[in-house]
Amino acid sequence: MENISSNKSFGGWHKQYSHRSAVLNCDMRFAIYLPPQVSTGDTVPVLYWLSGLTCTDENFMQKSGAQAIAAELGIAIVAPDTSPRGDDVADDEGYDLGKGAGFYVNATQAPWNRHYQMYDYIVEELPALIEANFPVSGMRSISGHSMGGHGALTIALKNPLRYQSVSAFSPISNPINCPWGQKAFTQYLGDDKSQWPQHDASELMRNAQQFVPARVEQGNADQFLEEQLKPDTLTAAANASGYPLELNSHDGYDHSYYFIASFIEEHLRFHAVHMQP
Amino acid sequence: MENISSNKSFGGWHKQYSHRSAVLNCDMRFAIYLPPQVSTGDTVPVLYWLSGLTCTDENFMQKSGAQAIAAELGIAIVAPDTSPRGDDVADDEGYDLGKGAGFYVNATQAPWNRHYQMYDYIVEELPALIEANFPVSGMRSISGHSMGGHGALTIALKNPLRYQSVSAFSPISNPINCPWGQKAFTQYLGDDKSQWPQHDASELMRNAQQFVPARVEQGNADQFLEEQLKPDTLTAAANASGYPLELNSHDGYDHSYYFIASFIEEHLRFHAVHMQP
Repeated sequence: MENISSNKSFGGWHKQYSHRSAVLNCDMRFAIYLPPQVSTGDTVPVLYWLSGLTCTDENFMQKSGAQAIAAELGIAIVAPDTSPRGDDVADDEGYDLGKGAGFYVNATQAPWNRHYQMYDYIVEELPALIEANFPVSGMRSISGHSMGGHGALTIALKNPLRYQSVSAFSPISNPINCPWGQKAFTQYLGDDKSQWPQHDASELMRNAQQFVPARVEQGNADQFLEEQLKPDTLTAAANASGYPLELNSHDGYDHSYYFIASFIEEHLRFHAVHMQP
Repeated sequence: MENISSNKSFGGWHKQYSHRSAVLNCDMRFAIYLPPQVSTGDTVPVLYWLSGLTCTDENFMQKSGAQAIAAELGIAIVAPDTSPRGDDVADDEGYDLGKGAGFYVNATQAPWNRHYQMYDYIVEELPALIEANFPVSGMRSISGHSMGGHGALTIALKNPLRYQSVSAFSPISNPINCPWGQKAFTQYLGDDKSQWPQHDASELMRNAQQFVPARVEQGNADQFLEEQLKPDTLTAAANASGYPLELNSHDGYDHSYYFIASFIEEHLRFHAVHMQP
């Protein structure tokens, strides 16, 4: 693991690292925000942030305003990349497939299966790396935006004992029934749709038996609301299983980082409550 | 003036506009953040933010976290571009000259003088446009980063009656004695160095007779501190004239937007006090 940048920020540190990922079979970069509390020897809980299509580890760290609140609350934030990277990694011309669009699943289909194992990377390899190398407490929560909202919800729903809480902004809530999800799942998981529902937040929530506290923020002026995101399907799924989902709709807000920034404080405070020792 | 984007943000609106600039002789883009208070019919004061080398109207709006605080305080923020733009605008291969590097002066030398009149654009044309088209009160403050910190300080020092307060992050404080400034001033203002001090914050502050309240933030780990920024020269100038300058140094902070974000709240509260009706 190599430290490739460090910026003091709100009394703590924003740092980028590169490392060899055995799971992804390539070199990866992630960013971590370490709040000022770590300088006193405390361990801190970690929020994992999964970004959306086309993003890297940088978008959330630069645009969300989260570090101001994380510094106050004493929460570390880890922002991984959104796909495997490198010249030998399979890619596609579309912004919604290949690099920058890993969809947080383990690909089973060629040529994707050689590198695109983002589910295992996020659930297993990256937390192990973080917990071995930084002063963190082992308390984990997970959040994300759009494709990353899909990632956060599905990962928490499949691993309820690994996360204290989950949240999402504008998540792709029902990928098996939207163009982004169908395109990606066909390529990564194959034509056999029987494998798809295990990576669909609405399907998982409808059948959930163990609950992770969940909060979702959605803008009503989001240009992808009806065709790609489908929050009503997620709400119906939560109602069917009695899942403790708080889904808040906001008039006028769109799909941009301005929406995330406007409500990230509430999400961080939500996670902080659930990650208290 | 054409509205080219709108994003709801912290209950207000981030908007980008394009317009024809008569002063710059080209089409320009700027961004404005309108806080939620304007929706009740109030007029609000305006902070003009001047960005640094290579930036556009977008960097500060996306990365500073300022909108959260501006929404609370009821301050509009206007972020202009950093140079004239367009295919027929003179440019240079260096990042520190030409497009993205207007240095907030009126160029007198060819080929720059046809478009590079950023001083008049920031002092006269843009505020007139803003005050004719948005619900603003006429109270103005000005701030900026690096090259934009130079711009904010020199513009306020030359126009003490037009601004309620001025601030800067990591400003180029003595451009006539640093490589960035000498390169730009030679090109834009010419070899006759007698014209240079009127665009040098330290020179202006040393000779100031009318005072605008001024605050400067500087990181001690800034990679440009000694060679390009020279805050000690600015402090000496303020001491010589008795200028009310508050210059704060911060251990560990660098030249990045993480530094701006860490202290933008203090700057906005400083300006809000001085822009009270």
